[in-house]
Amino acid sequence: MKRILIINGPNLNLLGVREPGIYGNESMTSYLDTLREKYINYCTLDYFQSNHEGDIIDKLHQVGFDPQLDGIILNAGAYTHTSLAIADAISAINVPVIEVHISNVHAREDVRHHSMISGVCHGVIAGFGMNSYRLGIEAILSL
Amino acid sequence: MKRILIINGPNLNLLGVREPGIYGNESMTSYLDTLREKYINYCTLDYFQSNHEGDIIDKLHQVGFDPQLDGIILNAGAYTHTSLAIADAISAINVPVIEVHISNVHAREDVRHHSMISGVCHGVIAGFGMNSYRLGIEAILSL
Amino acid sequence: MKRILIINGPNLNLLGVREPGIYGNESMTSYLDTLREKYINYCTLDYFQSNHEGDIIDKLHQVGFDPQLDGIILNAGAYTHTSLAIADAISAINVPVIEVHISNVHAREDVRHHSMISGVCHGVIAGFGMNSYRLGIEAILSL
Amino acid sequence: MKRILIINGPNLNLLGVREPGIYGNESMTSYLDTLREKYINYCTLDYFQSNHEGDIIDKLHQVGFDPQLDGIILNAGAYTHTSLAIADAISAINVPVIEVHISNVHAREDVRHHSMISGVCHGVIAGFGMNSYRLGIEAILSL
Amino acid sequence: MKRILIINGPNLNLLGVREPGIYGNESMTSYLDTLREKYINYCTLDYFQSNHEGDIIDKLHQVGFDPQLDGIILNAGAYTHTSLAIADAISAINVPVIEVHISNVHAREDVRHHSMISGVCHGVIAGFGMNSYRLGIEAILSL
Amino acid sequence: MKRILIINGPNLNLLGVREPGIYGNESMTSYLDTLREKYINYCTLDYFQSNHEGDIIDKLHQVGFDPQLDGIILNAGAYTHTSLAIADAISAINVPVIEVHISNVHAREDVRHHSMISGVCHGVIAGFGMNSYRLGIEAILSL
Amino acid sequence: MKRILIINGPNLNLLGVREPGIYGNESMTSYLDTLREKYINYCTLDYFQSNHEGDIIDKLHQVGFDPQLDGIILNAGAYTHTSLAIADAISAINVPVIEVHISNVHAREDVRHHSMISGVCHGVIAGFGMNSYRLGIEAILSL
Amino acid sequence: MKRILIINGPNLNLLGVREPGIYGNESMTSYLDTLREKYINYCTLDYFQSNHEGDIIDKLHQVGFDPQLDGIILNAGAYTHTSLAIADAISAINVPVIEVHISNVHAREDVRHHSMISGVCHGVIAGFGMNSYRLGIEAILSL
Amino acid sequence: MKRILIINGPNLNLLGVREPGIYGNESMTSYLDTLREKYINYCTLDYFQSNHEGDIIDKLHQVGFDPQLDGIILNAGAYTHTSLAIADAISAINVPVIEVHISNVHAREDVRHHSMISGVCHGVIAGFGMNSYRLGIEAILSL
Amino acid sequence: MKRILIINGPNLNLLGVREPGIYGNESMTSYLDTLREKYINYCTLDYFQSNHEGDIIDKLHQVGFDPQLDGIILNAGAYTHTSLAIADAISAINVPVIEVHISNVHAREDVRHHSMISGVCHGVIAGFGMNSYRLGIEAILSL
Amino acid sequence: MKRILIINGPNLNLLGVREPGIYGNESMTSYLDTLREKYINYCTLDYFQSNHEGDIIDKLHQVGFDPQLDGIILNAGAYTHTSLAIADAISAINVPVIEVHISNVHAREDVRHHSMISGVCHGVIAGFGMNSYRLGIEAILSL
Amino acid sequence: MKRILIINGPNLNLLGVREPGIYGNESMTSYLDTLREKYINYCTLDYFQSNHEGDIIDKLHQVGFDPQLDGIILNAGAYTHTSLAIADAISAINVPVIEVHISNVHAREDVRHHSMISGVCHGVIAGFGMNSYRLGIEAILSL
Repeated sequence: MKRILIINGPNLNLLGVREPGIYGNESMTSYLDTLREKYINYCTLDYFQSNHEGDIIDKLHQVGFDPQLDGIILNAGAYTHTSLAIADAISAINVPVIEVHISNVHAREDVRHHSMISGVCHGVIAGFGMNSYRLGIEAILSL
Repeated sequence: MKRILIINGPNLNLLGVREPGIYGNESMTSYLDTLREKYINYCTLDYFQSNHEGDIIDKLHQVGFDPQLDGIILNAGAYTHTSLAIADAISAINVPVIEVHISNVHAREDVRHHSMISGVCHGVIAGFGMNSYRLGIEAILSL
Repeated sequence: MKRILIINGPNLNLLGVREPGIYGNESMTSYLDTLREKYINYCTLDYFQSNHEGDIIDKLHQVGFDPQLDGIILNAGAYTHTSLAIADAISAINVPVIEVHISNVHAREDVRHHSMISGVCHGVIAGFGMNSYRLGIEAILSL
Repeated sequence: MKRILIINGPNLNLLGVREPGIYGNESMTSYLDTLREKYINYCTLDYFQSNHEGDIIDKLHQVGFDPQLDGIILNAGAYTHTSLAIADAISAINVPVIEVHISNVHAREDVRHHSMISGVCHGVIAGFGMNSYRLGIEAILSL
Repeated sequence: MKRILIINGPNLNLLGVREPGIYGNESMTSYLDTLREKYINYCTLDYFQSNHEGDIIDKLHQVGFDPQLDGIILNAGAYTHTSLAIADAISAINVPVIEVHISNVHAREDVRHHSMISGVCHGVIAGFGMNSYRLGIEAILSL
Repeated sequence: MKRILIINGPNLNLLGVREPGIYGNESMTSYLDTLREKYINYCTLDYFQSNHEGDIIDKLHQVGFDPQLDGIILNAGAYTHTSLAIADAISAINVPVIEVHISNVHAREDVRHHSMISGVCHGVIAGFGMNSYRLGIEAILSL
Repeated sequence: MKRILIINGPNLNLLGVREPGIYGNESMTSYLDTLREKYINYCTLDYFQSNHEGDIIDKLHQVGFDPQLDGIILNAGAYTHTSLAIADAISAINVPVIEVHISNVHAREDVRHHSMISGVCHGVIAGFGMNSYRLGIEAILSL
Repeated sequence: MKRILIINGPNLNLLGVREPGIYGNESMTSYLDTLREKYINYCTLDYFQSNHEGDIIDKLHQVGFDPQLDGIILNAGAYTHTSLAIADAISAINVPVIEVHISNVHAREDVRHHSMISGVCHGVIAGFGMNSYRLGIEAILSL
Repeated sequence: MKRILIINGPNLNLLGVREPGIYGNESMTSYLDTLREKYINYCTLDYFQSNHEGDIIDKLHQVGFDPQLDGIILNAGAYTHTSLAIADAISAINVPVIEVHISNVHAREDVRHHSMISGVCHGVIAGFGMNSYRLGIEAILSL
Repeated sequence: MKRILIINGPNLNLLGVREPGIYGNESMTSYLDTLREKYINYCTLDYFQSNHEGDIIDKLHQVGFDPQLDGIILNAGAYTHTSLAIADAISAINVPVIEVHISNVHAREDVRHHSMISGVCHGVIAGFGMNSYRLGIEAILSL
Repeated sequence: MKRILIINGPNLNLLGVREPGIYGNESMTSYLDTLREKYINYCTLDYFQSNHEGDIIDKLHQVGFDPQLDGIILNAGAYTHTSLAIADAISAINVPVIEVHISNVHAREDVRHHSMISGVCHGVIAGFGMNSYRLGIEAILSL
Repeated sequence: MKRILIINGPNLNLLGVREPGIYGNESMTSYLDTLREKYINYCTLDYFQSNHEGDIIDKLHQVGFDPQLDGIILNAGAYTHTSLAIADAISAINVPVIEVHISNVHAREDVRHHSMISGVCHGVIAGFGMNSYRLGIEAILSL
């Protein structure tokens, strides 16, 4: 059994509510249930969401040196494109981090085409809807 | 009677103290009293201030789906120019947001000439001193 | 009683005709009637429109030193983004100028995100439809 | 019989005089005679030239809603590269506008490589000498 | 009788199939029949299409020194914007080349606003649908 | 049973030989065997590699309208960053395309940070070594 | 006796009134009297001012082919930095044009550091106050 | 006896743990002990660390008007390069702020070459390892 | 005896024909004869030319791991400035590659000032006419 | 009687020899004789030339605080475009400096369009051949 | 006893004379006396100043391999922002170099925000007036 | 017998000492001996080195009009990338100049990718270690 933590950044608490044309209309809670059931024999899934850049950094520090944690799936939302501080936190810790995005950020506005954190993550998955999280799990399971 | 929320971003708790040459020397508290009295028959005015990007996002989420709230007047201070996450929050909610600035940001340093949030706000008012807030109220009253 | 002049720049003679999805379908003439009635006890409203950059400069010179004129509301249309000469005229005169836009220019094409004249105007109001002019009047009334 | 208007912008009154190495040495008047004769059974050709940006906008407004006018051939000269206001006028009217250039602007200085108006015109023809106007007529005849 | 060669670049074999909203739904084959019939007394029309940059260069070399060939109509598709090598081939040969585009490339994404080849072509025609090819023929006929 | 095609672009025929520090030392052939065995009950896997931009476009055209093909996994190698023509081919076809990269392109040289094709692909997966292909298969299986 | 024409562009009718800290407080009329007296034995001085870009172009055309005119001193004001059309007019005519500026434009805002017209003028003189005009006369007298 | 406050920004709680190749392997706590002992007769040293941009702003406000505080040594970590809000807070307060960096930020990635806050700090010290803090103390002691 | 391969890219099959002002008027064939004779005791010279980017990559792969080949002299023509895929092929192989240009590319248009491949070649030689190839041979002989 | 110093920068010792198409074919020595004779009753003219940036700075320091020196005419040659150190020297001294150029630098390569020193000079004169120096003298005489 | 060399670049011989608002009004000579006295038991201080880029390079070469020299404090003045050659000299030598600036260069013009040499220096100290040199000494003493 | 002058710019006096990983560990003196011996029957080799931009210009002037000198091999070191004045000197003289570099400048930092002087040199040779000088001699011998 592996252990995985999913971290969602700003505005992702609104999944299922906010701009369903872009983000779909399933809430994260119900999607997590589906995922946990599907991977019940492979991994546990913890979840953390915050709209605060500092909270995400604190969380990364708190769990990022835990040898029991096999990987972090991080959807940093808009902080993906502005936060050098989160990028530094990812560099500093030991647990591998997978960057995921629900939408294909490259097909949206210019400001979303550059990620501050891709270069320090283990890999990037974008554009598969909620399924991006599941692919992140698959990626960690086969590290 | 309409309901309006004024949100002030970073450093605006120092109004009346900080750089009076740019921001004037009236505190927000005393100015709010004046405004509430002036609009006593038209609207109520709530007020929220934080120096934390995440707090502003949380607040926008908390109030932004409330059908009783007629509009938000947002002076995001320096986050105006750096926060894609606040822009995303404004896009996500239903209540219309008016961007206001006390100073004429276009007459200041280059870094203040571009706003991350103007494109997702209902409208923009800048440069009228504390009166910018009052014009924001007028704008919401006539939506 | 205050005196205010509204100046409209290129293509704004087509208001009510041109691209109603962006500019609405009320003509300036009928809107002026509404405004004049509403502010009958507060101010008189003069109106000037031209598609010629030079005409707008001439007008600004002609009225801009008149101590009886309390303010100018200027919607410079596309010249907002290309005319340094109008900006120089605004700098040169004494009467305060308020920049207004019907649409939220920041939500349109990139070329409309930068204004040549904002830095020399007293303040900026954008995105409130025809109501932007009314907010400009309010702004001048409380100068 | 179709009706077509040719509009020439700044300095094009000097055709046949100015820089013949670039623009050839036929005057517009004599060329118009040739064209009118050639297309005598297909269309009438009106002509308008001005060095004033505002005049071109006024003209576009005046004729641009006329259901009897089949098309406008516009050589905006140097205003091609600087006038957002003419672009706005083209967007606003109903009659289709064809952008033409005598010289191949892409083979000249950098400042002539970008056109403000191409995106709002029906099509673009450049580099065929005076013949560019004739191709513009052909284009309108087959709309 | 003149001789003209039409060269179509990448993805233009899909005309009539690919994105009909942009490119229309007539296939090149049927359109060529129409053109050949229309110009039966004026010119012959050869046709070449390839998705390979190198094939287009080879073709330009093979025909470009033929004194019997009066002109080439080149729609280089996406290579318009990326191929300096095709531009060099056009510079190297003697037969004049007319650049054509079906859509108005200037009204599409930014990456399509700059052409590598316009500066070395005889002229440019863009935005008239399949009719752009016909205007190219007219241009060559009157060289 | 689904049907999937993997397309590899330039230099990827050298997998296992070229720069093993970046691309690992497993050849594509042996890796394909592993994948086919693993997914024997879920999908068939076809494979195509070429160093020629035009070949990749031809292939995309040939298979891209086949209703029996469920998805394409495309590692366009260096053409990812330079080929607008491949991007156009992806836009033109019906079969969904997943962009994959073996290395984390965002952690390499600047020229590899921008993809011409991401915006027209269904999604992007990068940085998981050969495993990126497997995640692409997972993504198509759950479309 | 030589003949010289001085052309002043937008806002320069306000000399002596507008921003005296930058432009000094002598009016052009009184300064012209001084100049005419000083050069009474060397040249005549005509004067033209307009706030209209088109008027300046018209004037340049009207006088620019006159073999009796020895030179034009042009202070194009803000059009210096935005008018390609005036640059084209200068290129087109025969009479040499000297570009002058009252203030040192290079010591002012960035937008005033680049001139559209310097490259087509005979020479440039900037920063000597009203004396810049006198140096322009000296320059023409010694051509 | 002077009073000095050291503020450390994001990820600097990991000093001694994170990337010792860049930041060394001494923890802040033990280094503070050394500093306090060394300067026992000259100043007291308070310490504050947070990963939250808003906390750093709050702290600056709280202490920045205290006439008893002689100076602030601020290592804003990654916020150095992204936070205009912290820069505004520094401008707003009275106590002088010294910007310090452990590593030579100019010898690292491009994104670390520009500081948002240098222009509003009293001075900058970078590249001396933990010794940068000590030089900051020396700087404040000799103000 | 050493073994050397010369690879010429697009349009270089036209040497002696194309733009002799830039490339001289000797054909590659006759020049190769001269070179082979001159170096008859030092090295053999193979030759390959293609206008296809993919062919050049294929050739580099085919010969680039041959321990008998001492060096490759590559004049990639216009692909020098656009082909990241050729650069990747050069990185991948073992045989050293010398970049040569007949003309001084730095004295030509801007687009030819940047090379995609210089950074991965062993060295660069440009501007010596056909003699650039001979200097490339000298360079390989003394490796 | 006024005192003026002319300073010429790099390569200007070659006047009359170097690129006569750009700089004319009169040597500085013979031109100085002409100037001295012409202004024999108005000013003395000292002359200094060096190809060394440092020598020019030393000279500016040595003479720049001399209350007997009325002005410096500086043709800094190529250092005009690269030397911030000469600009600093000009700022530091008291004697006014006039920037002159023989050729119209704005009509030459891009790199010569920006001057590092114009902003700190009293005024700028360019494009009048050797006569630029004479206009510089006139400018100083009328300060 | 350590040995330290202070090198001052262009215009710094004018300290105490030049722009005292920026650089203060103490001369370097008198400040050196103060420093030598203060550090009489810790180090000797040599001093070198030149306005010549080449002299500074020569000096760095001459002393930079001396094992008896403990450090160099370099205020390169304007060469900080333009001299790659000085940066190369610093890279080449063994003695550590500390970059210092009297003023806070980041609070001045844009051209002073980028340093060519910071990346190759041991550390940077800026903005503390003459005290910046003293902090440089402290930094070397604790290396 | 031909005559050749080798000029080395800043820091190249340290060859064999400075950064041997980049520049190798042979001194210029010993390498010159080797070269002179090798070319004893073909040419004489003079040598000049300076760290001063002005000295290099002076030298170019002194020798550059000598009809006895067949060519100059110039390694301008860091001045390659910053000195427009040296470029002007090369333009001004008659003797052909070959630009050489020991290292492959294109594989180093960005600032070394652009040369100010390539465009005015006869040709460029870079990346062959000390052998670059020998190739420069070969190039001049075959001019």
